[in-house]
Amino acid sequence: MEFRIEKDTMGEVQVPADKYWAAQTERSRNNFKIGPAASMPKEIIEAFGYLKKAAAYANHDLGVLPLEKRDLIAQACDEILANKLDDQFPLVIWQTGSGTQSNMNVNEVVANRAHVLQGGKLGEKSVIHPNDDVNKSQSSNDTYPTAMHIAAYKKVVEHTLPCVKRLQKTLAEKAAAFQDVVKIGRTHLMDATPLTLGQEFSAYAAQLSFGIKALENTLPHLAELALGGTAVGTGLNTPKGYDVKVADYIAQFTGLPFVTAQNKFEALATHDAVVETHGALKQLAVSLYKIANDVRLLASGPRSGIGEILIPENEPGSSIMPGKVNPTQCEAMTMVCAQVLGNDVTISFAGTQGHFQLNVYKPVMAYNFLQSAQLLGDACVSFDEHCAVGIKPNYPRIKHQLEQSLMLVTALNTHIGYENAAKIAKTAHKNGTTLKEEAINLGLVTAEQFDEWVRPEDMVGSLK
Amino acid sequence: MEFRIEKDTMGEVQVPADKYWAAQTERSRNNFKIGPAASMPKEIIEAFGYLKKAAAYANHDLGVLPLEKRDLIAQACDEILANKLDDQFPLVIWQTGSGTQSNMNVNEVVANRAHVLQGGKLGEKSVIHPNDDVNKSQSSNDTYPTAMHIAAYKKVVEHTLPCVKRLQKTLAEKAAAFQDVVKIGRTHLMDATPLTLGQEFSAYAAQLSFGIKALENTLPHLAELALGGTAVGTGLNTPKGYDVKVADYIAQFTGLPFVTAQNKFEALATHDAVVETHGALKQLAVSLYKIANDVRLLASGPRSGIGEILIPENEPGSSIMPGKVNPTQCEAMTMVCAQVLGNDVTISFAGTQGHFQLNVYKPVMAYNFLQSAQLLGDACVSFDEHCAVGIKPNYPRIKHQLEQSLMLVTALNTHIGYENAAKIAKTAHKNGTTLKEEAINLGLVTAEQFDEWVRPEDMVGSLK
Amino acid sequence: MEFRIEKDTMGEVQVPADKYWAAQTERSRNNFKIGPAASMPKEIIEAFGYLKKAAAYANHDLGVLPLEKRDLIAQACDEILANKLDDQFPLVIWQTGSGTQSNMNVNEVVANRAHVLQGGKLGEKSVIHPNDDVNKSQSSNDTYPTAMHIAAYKKVVEHTLPCVKRLQKTLAEKAAAFQDVVKIGRTHLMDATPLTLGQEFSAYAAQLSFGIKALENTLPHLAELALGGTAVGTGLNTPKGYDVKVADYIAQFTGLPFVTAQNKFEALATHDAVVETHGALKQLAVSLYKIANDVRLLASGPRSGIGEILIPENEPGSSIMPGKVNPTQCEAMTMVCAQVLGNDVTISFAGTQGHFQLNVYKPVMAYNFLQSAQLLGDACVSFDEHCAVGIKPNYPRIKHQLEQSLMLVTALNTHIGYENAAKIAKTAHKNGTTLKEEAINLGLVTAEQFDEWVRPEDMVGSLK
Amino acid sequence: MEFRIEKDTMGEVQVPADKYWAAQTERSRNNFKIGPAASMPKEIIEAFGYLKKAAAYANHDLGVLPLEKRDLIAQACDEILANKLDDQFPLVIWQTGSGTQSNMNVNEVVANRAHVLQGGKLGEKSVIHPNDDVNKSQSSNDTYPTAMHIAAYKKVVEHTLPCVKRLQKTLAEKAAAFQDVVKIGRTHLMDATPLTLGQEFSAYAAQLSFGIKALENTLPHLAELALGGTAVGTGLNTPKGYDVKVADYIAQFTGLPFVTAQNKFEALATHDAVVETHGALKQLAVSLYKIANDVRLLASGPRSGIGEILIPENEPGSSIMPGKVNPTQCEAMTMVCAQVLGNDVTISFAGTQGHFQLNVYKPVMAYNFLQSAQLLGDACVSFDEHCAVGIKPNYPRIKHQLEQSLMLVTALNTHIGYENAAKIAKTAHKNGTTLKEEAINLGLVTAEQFDEWVRPEDMVGSLK
Repeated sequence: MEFRIEKDTMGEVQVPADKYWAAQTERSRNNFKIGPAASMPKEIIEAFGYLKKAAAYANHDLGVLPLEKRDLIAQACDEILANKLDDQFPLVIWQTGSGTQSNMNVNEVVANRAHVLQGGKLGEKSVIHPNDDVNKSQSSNDTYPTAMHIAAYKKVVEHTLPCVKRLQKTLAEKAAAFQDVVKIGRTHLMDATPLTLGQEFSAYAAQLSFGIKALENTLPHLAELALGGTAVGTGLNTPKGYDVKVADYIAQFTGLPFVTAQNKFEALATHDAVVETHGALKQLAVSLYKIANDVRLLASGPRSGIGEILIPENEPGSSIMPGKVNPTQCEAMTMVCAQVLGNDVTISFAGTQGHFQLNVYKPVMAYNFLQSAQLLGDACVSFDEHCAVGIKPNYPRIKHQLEQSLMLVTALNTHIGYENAAKIAKTAHKNGTTLKEEAINLGLVTAEQFDEWVRPEDMVGSLK
Repeated sequence: MEFRIEKDTMGEVQVPADKYWAAQTERSRNNFKIGPAASMPKEIIEAFGYLKKAAAYANHDLGVLPLEKRDLIAQACDEILANKLDDQFPLVIWQTGSGTQSNMNVNEVVANRAHVLQGGKLGEKSVIHPNDDVNKSQSSNDTYPTAMHIAAYKKVVEHTLPCVKRLQKTLAEKAAAFQDVVKIGRTHLMDATPLTLGQEFSAYAAQLSFGIKALENTLPHLAELALGGTAVGTGLNTPKGYDVKVADYIAQFTGLPFVTAQNKFEALATHDAVVETHGALKQLAVSLYKIANDVRLLASGPRSGIGEILIPENEPGSSIMPGKVNPTQCEAMTMVCAQVLGNDVTISFAGTQGHFQLNVYKPVMAYNFLQSAQLLGDACVSFDEHCAVGIKPNYPRIKHQLEQSLMLVTALNTHIGYENAAKIAKTAHKNGTTLKEEAINLGLVTAEQFDEWVRPEDMVGSLK
Repeated sequence: MEFRIEKDTMGEVQVPADKYWAAQTERSRNNFKIGPAASMPKEIIEAFGYLKKAAAYANHDLGVLPLEKRDLIAQACDEILANKLDDQFPLVIWQTGSGTQSNMNVNEVVANRAHVLQGGKLGEKSVIHPNDDVNKSQSSNDTYPTAMHIAAYKKVVEHTLPCVKRLQKTLAEKAAAFQDVVKIGRTHLMDATPLTLGQEFSAYAAQLSFGIKALENTLPHLAELALGGTAVGTGLNTPKGYDVKVADYIAQFTGLPFVTAQNKFEALATHDAVVETHGALKQLAVSLYKIANDVRLLASGPRSGIGEILIPENEPGSSIMPGKVNPTQCEAMTMVCAQVLGNDVTISFAGTQGHFQLNVYKPVMAYNFLQSAQLLGDACVSFDEHCAVGIKPNYPRIKHQLEQSLMLVTALNTHIGYENAAKIAKTAHKNGTTLKEEAINLGLVTAEQFDEWVRPEDMVGSLK
Repeated sequence: MEFRIEKDTMGEVQVPADKYWAAQTERSRNNFKIGPAASMPKEIIEAFGYLKKAAAYANHDLGVLPLEKRDLIAQACDEILANKLDDQFPLVIWQTGSGTQSNMNVNEVVANRAHVLQGGKLGEKSVIHPNDDVNKSQSSNDTYPTAMHIAAYKKVVEHTLPCVKRLQKTLAEKAAAFQDVVKIGRTHLMDATPLTLGQEFSAYAAQLSFGIKALENTLPHLAELALGGTAVGTGLNTPKGYDVKVADYIAQFTGLPFVTAQNKFEALATHDAVVETHGALKQLAVSLYKIANDVRLLASGPRSGIGEILIPENEPGSSIMPGKVNPTQCEAMTMVCAQVLGNDVTISFAGTQGHFQLNVYKPVMAYNFLQSAQLLGDACVSFDEHCAVGIKPNYPRIKHQLEQSLMLVTALNTHIGYENAAKIAKTAHKNGTTLKEEAINLGLVTAEQFDEWVRPEDMVGSLK
């Protein structure tokens, strides 16, 4: 392997000759061998691409960066956005908690790449300085949280939300399609009064609607960008008007409604916006867990479980039990939800631990957030495509279980009172008989009354 | 101790002769000796008072309950609301997960108390039946979650929010009062560029403003009441129009904007609304942790810490070290926040675990929610009254630390570049000298330039 | 209400005239109105009773406390241990994180009570000084963690462990009793190859055995006492040999194997021992959750669930559905487990947050630990008594479900290969027929071979 | 891209022509597009390499697999262990919760690779059958948990433990090296009585010693292997003696003390062993957090913080503040610890969620466990190498802060009582004077007494 020499304020460092990164990136590579290489999320790098270009534009507009430097920086940033420089970002999450080293990684790559773009060679002093030009009017302390917000917001609105909405739509369609399928209800896992399968699915659709709304409620906070606060929030070394302008450019380049943060001190020292939005992702995980768990319980069997719905058979389920089919999409979904619940603890904990002007848990928060947002979206699509859309009622089973239910007795409460009704149910349970038989035997209702009063299809209400 | 005999559908039970509760409450007392007695939150009992009264009114309006029964039930409920029956609710949280036993506890007490109110004696068959009258048009499955929402909503809007707002106001006032106190900034716990103490406090105020907004965003979901869904959400055994009417009465009696739930199946089978609002409480805990932790760090010393603010001395701090004073309000607050973070895990976990038509983790969710909402509110008031309002700058210390800071060098970046500025700072650090001395020694700036360019008061920007 | 004046180093305070506590307790009462009064666990107060008496004995033996003072202090402590002074400890958990105020509460009560015991009156200067005598050779910083360890250790060995062992024994007995009850197995909630009900229960018993062992593994760390470290761990102001001697006295008074901590600095600055033991409690919660959840699934129905076991019917299950019986003990248990999982997060978080020589999250850790240890023990006994001991197989259901299982086909793998076996199972599933029918139809085995090879009772192995 | 056709019991599937995997792997690839491809940990694949080879050996020894099949399987497994087949395992964590698809991925790759090794071509029917040969005497239900235990145990004993021990050793060496450096103590972040820097570091070393012991305590449970339980724990389709023999081979091949599980039902249906060991990893995270957080606080400054130790300067700390150096290794460590705390919640939650004979959260548990074990080990080495070994006392600062401390007054308690001592400290604090001045002014001690009694070096005890 060949090397060239790069320098920073601490001295010289050997860097792989063919890489655009320079001294500070290389120091970080050597000082933080923790977990897999290049674990800093690619969404963060992409967000830096937008950010550095926007900063160059804003700096130029405000008279502190010449046009040619702006364009060189922008050209290098466009290459980042076009994924042409993906192998130039070798750093890990587990570095400095401000993400300074990844900010410098971007600064170095943009500076060196710009130098090459204008005809220079790697190893020469770049015409673009990583700190004085690429990082102009910036600090890691405001760039990294800005990149976090860009990446997180984009992921949520371009991936998570559409994916959850897709599943919500399928569940709402199932609720409509199954609206007349009367079936036994279950509370405490025990037989209860009837409802329709459509009503059961309407709860799932409603859960996701509430979750989508909760997630959308958090977005305005996440749309606020720290950029312009520089080192501690005061905006030191930025030209007047820079914070608003740079947020405008980011909004323009991404097509998303980013704005400059109301309070830059809050935006550097805390990541409550990330805590807030991830709280909503966690709520979605709670909802999705209930849904996926119900689906596998409803599909359990085929012969000795609940068995009221049929789900698609996607793959052989067992390496030893021939013919076995399992609710594997439910399992993938519930594992994802378990992950998101743990990620929420990491993010909340990290959120508490800022000190003074800076929270130094930025990379771990970004990593967990992006993982949750990605996995929830992916799992919704996978669950939708390979399970939810294919769900069908198992009519014979539904009918059988409904008819033998003892809890239909509840319809008699308003006619003969709770205590008499209880007597009927308990006797039928003890004797293994039907409600009707025991209701008549006990002399509490006539056969005609029973048939008139105990009609499952009348017990499901008009509620959707 | 004297006993009387009470009966339910399972048979006879001995009950303390002087208590209004009956068979089912007594069974629960005996079957669930888990943790301290009567641990079911009193706020839940109070909420049941509103709920049972509202149900009686709605039932009467809709023709299924006679006026005199309505009024007897209402009278007993009013006694619950007036705390006259506080010793009648002996049950624990750790009972059935639907809270059925506490619902029946209320039904029994109201029925028996009503019987006594109209001249009867305990032990006689009550003129009011606990199930057929007090529980008319209800199931534990819709009453308990309704009581949870009433109790939770009331606690949040009548306690938590006002208390947090009170502290937010104090912090905003401090931000204004300290707006000109220039001090050293700190990032990574290391000396950084300056800001004002007011700016530092403005971040705290902003955090709480965001948190208040996030909490308020969740309230519409929490305002939805399950009542009217009865056993599984279908509204079986309720008269037409009951769900809307009973929610109206609850809104009227509590003075709070409760409405009937859009989807009763969701409202019984899940408690995502509780998960959602507690998520916002958890976010507040994250914010409050940062604030209280910063305050104790800023007040640390008195001689060998940061020492930039003075906080009230409320009590002797040590049983062995004479004269010691500690940041005890910060400690109480951070312990409360630690509790809320754990409670959030309990609530989220419980939220995932509903099955089919019912989530049977209602009492544990109610308990944790109410604890968090109470403690956060209490802790905000305590912290406000005994700490925040009394915070004062320690001017000499602030001045001393600002003046000796090496990070003032950052102001030179735009004049001499990052690398030259670094040289000055590192030399001064090594030699234990001042920036100005080394700046001149190194020939990078003149004394006049230094004095013009490096002025802390010019480095704090115009950001508030 | 009448008051007397008490003083501390900060000045005078009005104290309720009839209470033994003095100035510092009263300050804390007024400064920390957070949550319910007197929430400091009574187990902590009791532990202080042992501790203060042991300290008095050790101090006397080492020549720094006269005999009569020792005996007066011991006499007051004995009253604490006899629960005669229970109303003298009004403080809350949410106070200073060192528990100093509760340590002083005990010091004040012991001092004043001792003064009265020897004939003095409340309000006079006590013959026993709260700091110089009762707290001699101590600091809150070593007494509170010592009290935590005493209380936690006692609770675990005298309550949690015996209760878990009781349930473990019942489960092991059920495993033996059910060892020949062949039933269908289930994996992924889907029908699988058979096992016996005894084997199923043997897993539960094994889980608790492992959990008990894991809990016992943690006890040596918890048996180490901080006492003797005083303010920062150095043992300042203690006579030589005091730490060992005082631990011996505590061991003698409690009958438990306490020893002085190997490293007093660790014992003050961290509560890793509490984190460690609570980790084992959390593991037990994980195990108990699985067990209780399985039991309710196995008991689900009675007609439209799994229904393979019958559990005791302890109380009416529904306020609206007559005759309904629910797995309420399982619900109480799983709620307790959810609580313990949240408590573990609180404790772990608190454990990370020590600074320098002291962790100031002691009361919140003690509170959560004792709650978990109490609830787990209580819930095990409740579950054992009201559920586990009464579990019975539902033989007809078990037989029916076993016979119709398609996964018995697995026994054919070794004879005809996985792929042919799969063909049989899938055909029977599609046609709603039996394995035997399709096995013969497909020409893969003869009727005789089928009867010889597919025998559920031969498929359950010899494993216990 | 070229494809070939592969079949399983569900029919035909197109598979990339050059890959060894077959139908079931390809189905999983298409059905679970969740998160990054090939996210199943490589350690799990490696563990399967040991496992499949051991199974082939045990099967051969027990007469159910011919020698040539054993050797072909073993040869393919050796290639897995030699990392020659790394690109053959494309599946993700978020698949079926039993890991069946990864088990089948291994079965398919081994079968096809074995076929090629003996001269066959991909796409032909393999001489080795993935289910009947490679998976003989196995089920995913016992192989995957066995692979989890192998991978987890190996990671802990070969990586985590040695790395933590390395850091522990450094901290113990620092404790010895700094044993005479007397410095101010701090409790509640406030100045307290003195101790030595060595004593302070001895607490860190002690924490890790306790943590190492706690981790080692969990290993016997983790050493138990499920293999031999097959589908539900009964060992169906295994030859007699297989479970013990296969565990012996795994022990032999890995050089680690694996044994067959005492209770196979527990080993399939629960992963309490994983919960248990990760609980100990979490405890280590709690300890490491305290240590790393203290180190950065002790190193804070350089001019306006605590500044009592100097840590290595590894890289420029700020992209905007020239000359800034930050405690970056502490930040990486504390981020890792935050991750591990969240992972523990995921693992505990997953651990509760087994149903009947199987826990279907295996991959998510394996993933989180291995991440924690890897990161903790890596972070310990990085922290050790780039921070801990280079820590040095900042003598002038330590001396200055010690001398000005007011808490030295504690030494006077035993001479003049707590209240008089408090008077001295409070007066000196108020006047900004020294203790000695005020002690004399107040007439409580003479200058000679003060000098004799208040000697920091005498206040640090003999405790190490």
